[in-house]
This record gives sequence, C-alpha cells and structure tokens, in this order.
Amino acid sequence: MPRIKFFPSGITAEAAEGEPLREAAARAGIEIEAPCGGEGTCGKCLVKIISGKLKTHGGFALPPEKREAGFALACRASVCDVDAEVEIFSAGGDGRFAEDEISEFVPPDEVSFLIKTLTLAVREPKAGDGFSDFDRLVSAVKNFVSFDGLRIPLPVLSALPETLRASRTHTLVYYIESGILQIVDLLPRDEIDFYGIAVDVGSTTVAACLVDKNGKAVAARSEYNGQIICGADVISRINYARKGLHELRQKIVETINALINSLCEESGADPSQIYHFSVAANTTMVHLLLGINPEYIRLEPYVPAVYDPPLLTAGELGLSANAAAPVYFAPSVGSYVGGDITSGLLRLPPQSADEVNLFIDIGTNGEVVLCGGDFLIACACSAGPAFEGGGISCGMRAASGAVESVEIDARTGEPRFSVIGGEAPKGICGSGMISLAAELYRKGFLEPNGKFSGESKYIREKKYFLSENIFITEQDMQNFIRAKAAVFSACRTLLSGVGLSFGDLKNIFIAGGFGRYLNLGDAAEIGLIPPLPCEKYVYLSNSSLAGAYMTLVSENNRRLQAEIAKKITYTDLSAEPSYMDEYTAALFLPHTDGGLFKKN
Amino acid sequence: MPRIKFFPSGITAEAAEGEPLREAAARAGIEIEAPCGGEGTCGKCLVKIISGKLKTHGGFALPPEKREAGFALACRASVCDVDAEVEIFSAGGDGRFAEDEISEFVPPDEVSFLIKTLTLAVREPKAGDGFSDFDRLVSAVKNFVSFDGLRIPLPVLSALPETLRASRTHTLVYYIESGILQIVDLLPRDEIDFYGIAVDVGSTTVAACLVDKNGKAVAARSEYNGQIICGADVISRINYARKGLHELRQKIVETINALINSLCEESGADPSQIYHFSVAANTTMVHLLLGINPEYIRLEPYVPAVYDPPLLTAGELGLSANAAAPVYFAPSVGSYVGGDITSGLLRLPPQSADEVNLFIDIGTNGEVVLCGGDFLIACACSAGPAFEGGGISCGMRAASGAVESVEIDARTGEPRFSVIGGEAPKGICGSGMISLAAELYRKGFLEPNGKFSGESKYIREKKYFLSENIFITEQDMQNFIRAKAAVFSACRTLLSGVGLSFGDLKNIFIAGGFGRYLNLGDAAEIGLIPPLPCEKYVYLSNSSLAGAYMTLVSENNRRLQAEIAKKITYTDLSAEPSYMDEYTAALFLPHTDGGLFKKN
Repeated sequence: MPRIKFFPSGITAEAAEGEPLREAAARAGIEIEAPCGGEGTCGKCLVKIISGKLKTHGGFALPPEKREAGFALACRASVCDVDAEVEIFSAGGDGRFAEDEISEFVPPDEVSFLIKTLTLAVREPKAGDGFSDFDRLVSAVKNFVSFDGLRIPLPVLSALPETLRASRTHTLVYYIESGILQIVDLLPRDEIDFYGIAVDVGSTTVAACLVDKNGKAVAARSEYNGQIICGADVISRINYARKGLHELRQKIVETINALINSLCEESGADPSQIYHFSVAANTTMVHLLLGINPEYIRLEPYVPAVYDPPLLTAGELGLSANAAAPVYFAPSVGSYVGGDITSGLLRLPPQSADEVNLFIDIGTNGEVVLCGGDFLIACACSAGPAFEGGGISCGMRAASGAVESVEIDARTGEPRFSVIGGEAPKGICGSGMISLAAELYRKGFLEPNGKFSGESKYIREKKYFLSENIFITEQDMQNFIRAKAAVFSACRTLLSGVGLSFGDLKNIFIAGGFGRYLNLGDAAEIGLIPPLPCEKYVYLSNSSLAGAYMTLVSENNRRLQAEIAKKITYTDLSAEPSYMDEYTAALFLPHTDGGLFKKN
Repeated sequence: MPRIKFFPSGITAEAAEGEPLREAAARAGIEIEAPCGGEGTCGKCLVKIISGKLKTHGGFALPPEKREAGFALACRASVCDVDAEVEIFSAGGDGRFAEDEISEFVPPDEVSFLIKTLTLAVREPKAGDGFSDFDRLVSAVKNFVSFDGLRIPLPVLSALPETLRASRTHTLVYYIESGILQIVDLLPRDEIDFYGIAVDVGSTTVAACLVDKNGKAVAARSEYNGQIICGADVISRINYARKGLHELRQKIVETINALINSLCEESGADPSQIYHFSVAANTTMVHLLLGINPEYIRLEPYVPAVYDPPLLTAGELGLSANAAAPVYFAPSVGSYVGGDITSGLLRLPPQSADEVNLFIDIGTNGEVVLCGGDFLIACACSAGPAFEGGGISCGMRAASGAVESVEIDARTGEPRFSVIGGEAPKGICGSGMISLAAELYRKGFLEPNGKFSGESKYIREKKYFLSENIFITEQDMQNFIRAKAAVFSACRTLLSGVGLSFGDLKNIFIAGGFGRYLNLGDAAEIGLIPPLPCEKYVYLSNSSLAGAYMTLVSENNRRLQAEIAKKITYTDLSAEPSYMDEYTAALFLPHTDGGLFKKN
C-alpha cells in the first residue's frame, strides 16, 4: 500500500492506489479545504509533490508553469502505486488567513503604536567635550522627547559605539511609561522596517496577525493551541497546571512562536524586527502564558492572580522577537471574562446611547455581554464542550467528516445530512448537533424534554441513528440541552436584571469560530437564541484578534479598552438567584415558556 | 619530574621530588601565605590533596580528622615522586579581608540603600470584589508609597498567588526610579535578611564587600581580576577586546561571582538574597563588564561609550544575585578618570573651603586629583607597570619572595634587604624598587640621571646586584624614573595650573594597594613625592572599594558622588603644554630643581 507523507505536519497516511488525495489526508486527520467543491477552480487546495508521484487531473486554477514545477490541486489528485511526499499550502492546512479576512483589519486614520520611532542625528564624538556616546545619544533624544528617566537594554548599550559610528543618522525605537523613556533598539539607519504582532490566545485556537510599520495587517494565521493535548478546556488545563505549569507555558509560547515564524517567513520579515505585541487572551490563558499557577481561578474565593498585567517584554516571555519589545495585554475583568472579551467588545460598531445590544461569544465557555449606552454587564456560563462536539457520543470538531447539517423526513424519520469535506460521516460537530436537534424537534421525533418520540426505524434503544455507526443518545441530548440552556438563560438573566427582554435589543453580535457555521433558524428552533429577525444578528468572526489588532495600532483603542474593562460589571451567574430558575426553565426545547419562541 | 596541578586556578607546576609544596606553587606564580612562617601553627595554608600524593609532616593546626580527609598544611608538605592535584584554601589564596580592614567600612547614621523594603499586609482575596492578587498588592503598596507606574519582574508576578497565600504579611523589595516603582522581590515574611555588594573592579585586583540589611560590612575579599591572562594593563585589555570582548566580559563576571560566592559562603548568606550592587571601576573595566567594545577609549577622538551608566540589573549583567537587583555604577569623568576615582574621592575627610589637598592613586595608571573648596581637577598619567614590577628585569608583584626594602652599606655598596615571606629573594617589587633607588642615590651609587656610579663589587656591567640572580639594570632605572616622573610632573602640572605649589597643600592622600607599602622617606628621596612633613601624608587603603561601600549604603553619598563627578575638571595632560617640560624636569633623581626636595 502506498504511503503518503504530508508536510508541514509530517503525518503519514497509508493510502489505496487510486484514492483521492484529500481522502487519504482526511484519514490522517488533515483537512485540505476545497471551497469550490473539487472542481479545480478556486485553487485553494494547492499542494506540492516533493517526492514520489501522484496522478493529477489538471484543474482550471493550476497554471501550466505551476504544474511543471510540481504543484497540483489536491481535489484533482489521486494516489499512484508509489509512496509520495506532499506539502500542503491550503488555507485549511496552514491556518493562513485569506486576503479578504485580513482586509477586515483596517488601520485607523492615525496609527499610534505603543512604541514610537525617532530619527536622530547624534553628534559626532569630540575629544575633550566630556560627552560619552551615551551622553550624546541622550542629548539627541532630548531634542525631541522629554522624559524624567531613561532605560536602555544592555545589548543596545553594549553595541552603542559601533552603532553610533556606523551611520550619521539613526532610528531609535522606544516607548514612554510613566515618564521613563524605555529604549527598545537603536539602529544605524534613518529608516527602518518594523513589525508588531496582535495575538488572540484561545484555549483551542491561537491566531496572530503581523502588522507593518504603517499599521497595515500584512498576514495572519491561526494554529491549534499546543496545550490541547494537556486538556480540552480551561478547567482541565487548570488541573493539568498543578503539575505541568511549566509545560503549559512552554506549549503556548511555542505555538505563538511558530505563528510568528510562519508569518515572518510568509512576509519576508525577521522576528528581530518585531518590536511590539498586543495580546488578547482569556484569563486562564494569560496566567499560563505568564507562568502563573491558575489554580485559584477555580478555588474559592475564585480570585485570579492578575486581571491587567503590566507591560512585560518579549524577552521575559520567551517570544520570538526583539527581546525588549513591550507586550501589552488586554485587561480581563473576571475569571471567565477575559481580555478576549474586552478585545471583542472593541470590535462592536459605535452604538447610540439609547440602544441595547447583546454580545455572545460561544466556545467551551460562553461569554455574554449586555451593552447599553451607560452599562456593560458581562457574565460567563459553562456551556460545556457540547458545541465543540465534546460530551456527545459521536461528537467531533467541525472538521472533515463531521455531519454539519441534517434534514429529516417527517414521515419516516429518515435522515439526510451533509458532511464537511463531502465524505463518509465520522461524527457530528456543534452545528450538526443544532441542526439535528432542530430537525428532530421540528419533525416531531423529539419531545421538549429531550426524549425521543414517534415511530421510526431510526430510533432504537433511546438512540437516533444517522447511520450504522453515527447516532445520538438521549443522554447526549441532555448534555446538549444543558449547554444551550446555559447560554440562553445567561442572556435572559442579564436582560431581566435591567428589566429588558430580547425584543428591546437592537442587535445580537455573535463572535468566535462557532458563529461562522451557525444556522440561525435551527438555533432559534431549539432555543439557543431567540427567534429575532435575521438582520438583528451580526456575525463578528474572530473579534478577539480584531480587538488585539485594534489595540496594537491605536492608543485611543487601548484607552477605550481600559474604559470598557472599567465599565464592565461582572455578574457571577452562580450567585444570581434568578439564574437557576432561568436555567431550569430553559432545559426544554425550545423553552418552557413557548411564547418566547413564537416567530415574530 | 612530578607535576603538581593547583586548584582553583588550574595551573600546573613541574616540581622536584622533595620540594616544599609552597615553593612549587610559588614557581607557578601561586602564593600560599603561611603567616606563622611554616611552623604549622596558624593553619592558614590549608590545602586538600585531590589526587596523587604529597609527603606531609603534620602540623599543630591540622586536626587528625582533617588529615584523614585528605587535607594538609602547605607549609608542612613536600612533593613525592608522583603527580598530584591540590586545592588551595589559604587566606593568601582566598583574599579574605581581616576584621580590622572590614571595620574601616562604617555605616552612616542613616542607611539609605537604593532599594527599600516595605512590610505589607495585603488584603485577603475576596470573591466578587473585582480585585486580583496583583491589584491587591498594588493597592497595599499605595498605602505607603506613591508612584506613577509600577514594574514587576515576571518571576515575581508568576509566583504571586503562592507568595500572597503563604503568609499574612509580606516584605516588598523595591526601588523608585523617576516615578516608577520597580519591584525587585516579594517575600512571604514580615522580616527578611538581605544583602548588598560593593565592588571595586580594578584592572589587576577585584575587591568586594558583602553588606547586610543594616548597612554593616560583614565580609570582604579580593581576588585577581580573571582578565589578567588577557593582558596586564588597560591598554592591552583594550587590544585584546578586539577579538576577545566576550571572553573579557565573562572573565570579570566570573571573578565577581566567585567573590560573591565566597563572601556568601563565609557569611551564611545566599546569592539570591543579594538585592543591590554598587560598582566602582575604571572606565575601561566598566566597558568590559557591560560588554562594550572599549576600543574608542584609545582611538581618536578618545570618546568612551559611557561615563555614567544607567541602572542595570544583576540578571542582565550575569551577576550571581537576585536577577532584578539594581546595579549602580560610580560615574566616570574621563577615559582614564573612572568610577574608581569618583568613589575614592568620596572617602576623603571633609575639607574646609580654603584648604587644598592632593589625591594620588598609583597603579598601572596613576590618577591625581587636586581638591580645592570649589574645584576638583583630575588627570591621569601613564606611570606604566614599573611600580607593580613590570618593565623591570627582576621585577615582580608585592608577593612572597619579593624584595620590599633595601639598605646599602655606604662604603662597600653591599645590600641588605628584607623579603616578603622571609624567603630567598625572587625579584623586586615596587616598594623594593623605590627603597633600592633611594638607598643607591642616598649612598652615592646612583647619579641623578639614573646611571650607576662609585666603586662597588655589586656594580658590574651597568647592573647593580642584590644577589647572584637579582639585579637591576640602568635601563630598569630609566623605566623606573620615567614612572616616578610621570606621577610627580602630573602633580606639579595640576598645581601650577592653579598657581599653587606643594607647600600650599594641607594633605596628600595616597590611595590604592601601592600606598600600603610606600616608604615616604624613600619616595621623597627619589622625587616620586615631595618631601613634606609625614603628617601631611594620609594613606587611604582601598578608597575605591570604600567609596563603593559608601554609595551602596547612602543616598546622600550617591548624590555627593554625582556632584563630585560634575565638579571634576578633567585635564588631558598630553594636551597641556607645560606637562612635557615638567615631565622632562622630573626625569632626574630627585628632580632637576633640587630646591623642590630640600627637606623642610
């Protein structure tokens, strides 16, 4: 049997002669996206044959010169009778953001990084004038900036004689913190290229964006958080940290550095040119990145070590960049309302004083923020991993082979479903679960209490079978209903706390990867979200990374973020008497109060 | 021939069977002091036989259990017919300061280190109050200190949850720099022991003093600068740095760390308890310690990289201490008037506005400072290594076997001399040269121009013989006269620059190791110093280390030192037209102007 080795992952798959390349890859857990559906027209599934041979079938999107250079489209390639090595370039494989995604990061009119640059003409050394190199540097800087104190990294000081004598003009990279001018670097050129990195550190996915000196986002990528193998969610990471804190810290640093290196390689930048960072992360991820034991986040009285870390340096954190580069952290406001949320909120469009909106970020944890003209009320609910396929018998992440939407014949209960990647189904992802539950309920095969009902050969032994091997149990359905109830009741609790209802909302903003695949009708059918008119729902994509970008490029945004953090009232749902009632009432499809889900 | 390897230096000596161990060591340049004169009674020459064998003869100071553990007294040990490895522990070897030397460091009435400590009672964590551990720390600090910004080392932040929960009271170690409160450490105790290190980094010798939290000097030691093998003087080090900068930096850091470790071991302290440093060093040593290429110090226009380094941390420098410990550097004022001089000047007793004093620090370089009520005029002269035994046929450092003083029979020219350590003479040290030259001149065997004269069987072929193998040549005498002329004419040039003469001086302060052995009468006889009444001369011992200690323990002294540095006018002798005339006039014994040396 021929073996195909895939790069950059290095994973090898055993394949059958004639098997489509994407199928062989998928069996090895590698998803090669083909948005055009395998028509060979979009070119996104580009691969390069490094060694061996593949049978290729051309494709409109592959120019002849690329084909001659060993490139192929994965959707138009199949396995021969020999081993092969293949490098994957697709968006799915390397986490690269598409041009249109990057274009969402719009520089402000006036870019104002945390770091500044200054072109200097340092006086030449002169015998007997009593001024050292350092003295002349300081006095040149004083011509432009006033400061009370000055700090210089030892490597910059050590190189000072050579740096000053290498050019007549220099560029100083610095920032000012409470009157102290902190030098980051000094370069013997009057113009330099430099970069910043905005990072969103999620529990599952880490995304980073490389920003040039004009504030333009030049490339962005995402990558799984290397900590995943230490636990799928925040709580299991916190448990793992008891013995593996150092390992967790190392893994997240490695993940970020891998992203930095890929971004630099892609853009022709060098990590040493990276002079500033903005990090948006949930509270636990901040702790792990700083090497702080996060244990007390989940131990009474639930007080984290830090909400708003002071500036640190890339060198301290071990990030692949200029060692003196300052690292800004988005402030957190609670154990489960982190810098990802204060960043995400930055991304909201301006709102007038009298409108009220809801911001929902559903992941393993769901965070909900009620946004009024003069209030921001946030809470977090433990949705559990059901929306990511966890705690469900045949659950899986939204990847190749996952059932993502289901239709059910009202008479027979027979399912028809679509699978990501168009292959044989391997499991059910979050949006598949929502679709499946909605269809079962809609077609009368599911009771409001989550029990299966009706006559169908697809329902046996309290299980509904999508296929021979793919099914859901009533227990799965209970877990799923608890997850949707947690989110919905969180929204309701926040709203009723200020005497409002869903109808008073102007918009509901859905953030995070989950939102991308959400079918609003299905979600409303099962009572995850209320059945508001479609135009009220706004999908924000990765709002946390967008917020990190915004604070990287603008002092005003950093100030706004501090105001947001200050303005947020954190509601601990477990301490809200009404929450348990709301939650219990939501443990039905769609809800015990059916009136809430009448279509308007 | 058996070979003996000595540790910690790692130097190997070829030895003869039966040879006393100390002699074998001395031939390899290692001095093992035996204050009791080899009687085996003081125990200071303790060594440990690591491998091989020595013939030992017991000794009162060596308890049987130590002998069984492989220890021996070097003064009672001789070489066998096999190789051996020996570790030296002797007082001469470890550079420990005597009690009386340490007692010269007197704490001021009010000790004010650069770092401060603060006993804090940080509030307990409380659910839902919105304060993280870090927030509560900051607010506890704000009860006592006001600041604009705050910085915390990552390791302190990382440990915060555990530190805060380990005790109800804490000690914060911090310093304030231009409104920023820089945390150094946080300890879960309401009382802590901590230490500071004052260091004098000389080209030849490095001395360090461990200071406790009350400002008391608890131990002090000196050690040869590990850079010596890269060149004996500042100029050769600068040349070596062209290719070996990193090595030079490493060697001086290793030397300081070895001193720190010895001091800690001696005092039961731990390097992690060292929270602050004060460093006094000449300009070149500062460059090498910071890893700065010192080349431009000796290249036109002779401008160093830095005179007054900003605060750095022990971690940046690689010093064995708490990584965040701030390192204060005494400011330099010229390429050859360094922090050792601005420190040494601190050591001078208070002077009234109308008196004028002279401060002379003679080493490889001689620095001279004329101190008036409203002026400080400094210069440096290249005395050359003659006073340290360099450039003299049979010259050596002031160590065991060095002729240190000479008397000569006026009739026959026969020498009688005393030798350091009381052994057979091996060479002549600086004070021996002064004594010898003075006696030869006094007794008529030496002309003012440095030529030998008179009839004596000890004078042959333009050499004067102290013994069969120990002699000086007329060429040696020329080198020596140039050295004394450099120093004397430097003093004269400074004085005449302000219209004064030696008679106007209230005191002449002699600093540095050289001064310890100086016979004032002899020194005046040859014209190194003027023949003023003895009480005008004051010996300051290691004034640079004393100054480093003073700036370590007192903010007032740090301010005074900054004022001293500002007040000093640096006179470049090579640019003074009168200096060459003065120098030429001083190239005689005692001087062309004999009137200067009439005894008062």
